[in-house]
Formats: sequence, structure tokens, C-alpha cells
Amino acid sequence: MNQLNDETYMKLALQMAETTKGQTELNPVVGCIIVKNGRVVGMGAHLKMGTAHAEVQALRMAGEEAEDSTVYVTLEPCSHHGRTPPCAERLVEEKVKRVVVACKDPNPNVAGRGIQILQNAGINVEVGLLEQEAIQLNEMFNKYITTKMPFVTLKTASTLDGKIASKTGDSKWITNEGSREYVHSLRHQHQAIMVGVETVIADDPSLTTRLVVEGIHPIRIVVDSNLRTPISSKVVQDHTVKTIMLSTENVSENKIKQFEKLGSEVLKCGNEEQVNLPLALQQLAERGIGSILLEGGGRLNGAMLEAQLIDKIILFYAPKIIGGELAPNNFSITGFEKMSEAIVLENMQTKTFKNDICITGYPNYGGGKI
Amino acid sequence: MNQLNDETYMKLALQMAETTKGQTELNPVVGCIIVKNGRVVGMGAHLKMGTAHAEVQALRMAGEEAEDSTVYVTLEPCSHHGRTPPCAERLVEEKVKRVVVACKDPNPNVAGRGIQILQNAGINVEVGLLEQEAIQLNEMFNKYITTKMPFVTLKTASTLDGKIASKTGDSKWITNEGSREYVHSLRHQHQAIMVGVETVIADDPSLTTRLVVEGIHPIRIVVDSNLRTPISSKVVQDHTVKTIMLSTENVSENKIKQFEKLGSEVLKCGNEEQVNLPLALQQLAERGIGSILLEGGGRLNGAMLEAQLIDKIILFYAPKIIGGELAPNNFSITGFEKMSEAIVLENMQTKTFKNDICITGYPNYGGGKI
Repeated sequence: MNQLNDETYMKLALQMAETTKGQTELNPVVGCIIVKNGRVVGMGAHLKMGTAHAEVQALRMAGEEAEDSTVYVTLEPCSHHGRTPPCAERLVEEKVKRVVVACKDPNPNVAGRGIQILQNAGINVEVGLLEQEAIQLNEMFNKYITTKMPFVTLKTASTLDGKIASKTGDSKWITNEGSREYVHSLRHQHQAIMVGVETVIADDPSLTTRLVVEGIHPIRIVVDSNLRTPISSKVVQDHTVKTIMLSTENVSENKIKQFEKLGSEVLKCGNEEQVNLPLALQQLAERGIGSILLEGGGRLNGAMLEAQLIDKIILFYAPKIIGGELAPNNFSITGFEKMSEAIVLENMQTKTFKNDICITGYPNYGGGKI
Repeated sequence: MNQLNDETYMKLALQMAETTKGQTELNPVVGCIIVKNGRVVGMGAHLKMGTAHAEVQALRMAGEEAEDSTVYVTLEPCSHHGRTPPCAERLVEEKVKRVVVACKDPNPNVAGRGIQILQNAGINVEVGLLEQEAIQLNEMFNKYITTKMPFVTLKTASTLDGKIASKTGDSKWITNEGSREYVHSLRHQHQAIMVGVETVIADDPSLTTRLVVEGIHPIRIVVDSNLRTPISSKVVQDHTVKTIMLSTENVSENKIKQFEKLGSEVLKCGNEEQVNLPLALQQLAERGIGSILLEGGGRLNGAMLEAQLIDKIILFYAPKIIGGELAPNNFSITGFEKMSEAIVLENMQTKTFKNDICITGYPNYGGGKI
């Protein structure tokens, strides 16, 4: 057991929140621990959009013990009447003594007002314990709530020379089982998964979440400007989860109906030859999709990067050199003229899955003028 | 201070050996610690080819204290009369009590005979403490002594999409200062550095070792099938260290004399259009070059890899995406048809220099049929 202190309790609350990543849809993940007289008296996490918030879950467990207790919560208690009554008011009612908050709510409907309610009621409030961890935990929610655009995580797997397939197109397998299993956890944690029609034609993937435990399947999104997706493909025929096709105004209504009859939704994104990607993401956000895992090929990855729509990049490198000038690269983009103009990945982290290396970072488009 | 035990002393001996990497030319690096009655009484390392071995240095420091002592040595004491008398016999003469050896000498002239001499004299010998560390320390020597071919380390620096320059050829800079400084340590640790003529024409590098402390400059090797190296280039005009040009039988004697007059040596490696690389490395080995740092461009790197002449690969990745189909790749090779045929890097290690990632591994050509 670790040294018992504020941090220990907040860490547990963060871990509880982290474990629920993927199950709260457009809501943030939140964990809450209530402590009184040296004993944990309540624990809670927000489990599903539309159900009780973390604080309420923990207060229920605490019951009468809530009075004079310390509440550790990973996100500022809400102040607005939404699907549930405001948690800040509930904490005042329960007469808690002290509230430790990891980070403020970026939601413009809260933004400090929750803390204000607590302080006005004379509760001792401390903000900022493990703040960075708490902010990163909800990076997807934070982007969506402030911009109304989905957070897009690009995942790609390549050889050490940046190739996602051999020159003949062979790509089975680049990475090892451990890496591939981790990708299914990523699918679970995103509301939707996005691929290009080329991937559907080449691999006929099911795009579901397959883990040793049960996972949540992301909504499937296929970028398909001319609706070339084969009717027989798994994303159309399999109804485990919904499929949305992104297309343009130029495709025929007949074609669209063909897919709609089979349960897929077709969105018309602009009247250009190719799908207008920013417009497409806007339409997805309006449909309640706040996070997307992009598992495209080099071209879709490149187009999304050039449109500056990627928020986070997860690169897997297998310990292999495949070679071949015509073998496709992990990023097929026009490219910059100078090294100083390249897109830079910030806050890089690395981890390994046996001999595979996984690099995570956040693209800074500042340097690059595409 | 660490717990005092056999491993502590051997670790120090290994560290002493490691620090001398690069200064023993064709000889292995070796460290030796002599301990008696709980006190270190001797310390030694082999410092330069042709001078005293590590054991002799340590015995000199120990003087009369050597009798009944324990000797920790990172490599089996030698058994043959080479440039110096055999260390195994010397240890017997000094009447040491116990010898702890990290690893056997792969040199066919020793190969267990040193240990045999000690055991025959009744000395207690233990072999294998920190064996893997000791073997890796002399990986370059081990290759050379058993195959009479130089150990080649390929170093390359690229973006995350495997590019070593932008599509316009801009490559300044890909990696950060910390990574580039480490490369100079690698130059110090190899007997020679190898580049292609294209690099000389494009960058006019001096290829010397530049560190905050003084370093050893590697012999410069330029792969230049048609002797196109400009006479005005630094590798020809600067005489800090020798330059060897690798060329073919097809170049004119006049051209060769031009370079020889300026102090460069020209080796004719085969009569094909391009330098015969295996033949070239053989000729370099005959000239006493046992280790080479290859800092080629994509083409020379690719050719050396296709010829299976690379023993170790050190890849630096900068946290950047540059793009561009025509931007050169870190490995320009014909490429394999199937992912399962790719060259696999084994025993991969990663380290970071701020946001740059450095991956080290050993190519296994087994999978690849080039």
C-alpha cells in the first residue's frame, strides 16, 4: 500500500475514471472518492451518458457519512441542470467539508461555476491536484466540448522504413499480437472508427472491437466519395454496430438507397469530387460523435493530416525493414520542402509491446504550411 | 555505494572496459579489478593495441598484494604469446587465489586455453558472471576475430515517415543536438566511418569526431565507384585523419594518382560498374579495420543491407512528419514482396534524446531473401 495522502485518493479516482474510458460517449470520464475519519466511505464513477455523475454515485454509497467528509473528484462538479441536477448543489446539501478537484471543467456551461457554488457555501475547495493527468484523461471530451468537432486519433502501423505494406500490398502482419490487441482497446475507447473505401475493398474488415473481455464496438465510418463499397462487405452486411458512409452530393440517390436499405447511413459531404473532410467531421459531431479512431491507409491518413483534422497520432513500428520504393508509406502527403516546415509531434511518449515500439504524440501544425 | 559482491566488482571492470571503447583498435576492451582482504588492490584496463593487457596493468598496481587475491576480469585471460606474454601464465606466477571471468575469449587462439592454464595451476576459476554484458561490449571485436570481416554499424536519422530529407533534399536538421552529439561518440568508438560519394558531393562533411572532450577520429572511407569525389572536398584536403576511397578496376591510374598525391588511398574493389562491397570490406579488414560506422544515404545503406554486410543498426527518429513521395527513404532497397520476408531487427533497444527516439537492433537476414 502506498503512503496515504490526498494524492493516493486522487490517483484511485483517476484510475476509476480511466477504466471507464469509452463507455460515457459524449460525456467526460470522472472518478470520485469520499473519505471520512481516515476511511473511504464512498466511491463513484460516471458510467454512462444520462445516468448519475461520479459524485452522486459516491454520495449514495456514503449515505449519512457524507457530512463533514472530504470529496476527491477528478473533474469540477457540474453547476448546470442537464440530464441530472447539478452535483455542486448536491455536495452542498450533503454538507461535505472539503472538496479536492483535479481540474476545472472546460465545458463553457460549467467553467468554474461549480467551484464557486461550493465556495459560496463555505466548503474548503482545492483545485489542481494531478491536474495534467486529469486533463489528459478527457482530452477527447475537452476538444469536443470546446470546438464541437470530434477528437481524431490516427493510428498506423509500419515497418522501420515507414511502410504500411510491401510493394505487392502484403501487410499481414506488420505488428505483433500485443500491439494488435492494444488497438482493440483503442477501438473500445473511441465512439467511432474511420477507414477509407480502399481498405474496405482490400481487406473487408469488420472493424469491431475484439478483446479477451467484452468491448464496446465503435460506430463504423467509411470515407467513400463514389460509394464504391461492395454491398457484400462486412461493414454493410454485419449489423453488430451502425455504419456511416461519407460521400458527396454527386452520388446517385439509387446508390444511396441501396445502402440505406441495408441499414447504413449515407452522409453527403460537399459537392466536390472527394469528400469534404472538415464538413464531414462537423456532420459527425452533430450526430453525437465526439471521438474517432482513424485507421486509414496512407492516403486517407495523409488527407486528414493535410486538413489538420488529426489531434493525436499513435504510431506502431515493427522491428522490420521491408524496402521498395512503391511500397506505401504511413503518410502519403505532398510533403514539405524544408525539414523546418515538417509537422512536429509534441509530448511524445513511447511504450513497447515486446519488440514493437508504440509512439504517441500530438501534431503541431504550426511549423507546416501545407 | 552498492552492496559489495562479485557482481559489484565485475560491473566496475565492465565500466572501465566500456569507457575505453574506441581506443584499442583491433583488440577487445577489457577491464580488471583485483581484490584482497576486502580491499581493491589493483585496477586495470587494456588501453591501446600493443600495450599491456588489463590483467597486467592491475597486477602492476597490486604488486605483492596480488598473492592470494581474487581477480575479476571481463574477458578470459590470454594464453598465447602475442605482442605481450600470456596473461594466464602471469596470473599463475603471481599466485592469485581465485579468478572470476565474465566471458570466454572468442579468439580461436585462446578459446578456453587461458582458463585451462589457470585451472591446471590449481586456481579457482569461475566463468560467466555478467556474461551477456561482457560479450556485447566486444561485439565488434568478436565479429572480426572470428570472421576476419569488419563489424559494420549502420546509423541513420529520419522522420517518423522514414524520410532522411525533404523532397527538395533539405536535411538540416532532422534530429536534435543531443542525438547528433551521440553520433560523435559512435564515431569515436569505430575505427572507420563510411559514406557514399553522393554525401561528399552534397554536404562536403569532414567526418571527424567532435565532442565536448577530445575524441578519436575514425579513418574516412568514401564509396566512390567512378572517383567523382571533388578534389576540393574536406575528406581529401583535410589531413586530420586518413581517407580511403573505394573504387573499381575501371578507374584511370591518372585519377587515382591525383588522390594519392593528396594523401588519400584508393582501393580497387572488383571490375564491375559499382564497387564490390564484400570485396571492399575484406580489403579493409586486411588493412586492420575491424569496425566501421556507416553513415550513408538511402542508396548506400540499401546496398550494404542487400549485401547482408550490416551487423547492427542504429536508427534515430525525430518527432516529425515531412511527407513527399520523392523524399528519400532511410533504406532504398528493391524491397520484399511479403511482410514475412522483411529483414527483422533483433534484440531491439530504445533510448530517447529529448523528443528524438533512438532504436538499436541487429538485423536477421534469415527471413529476407533479397
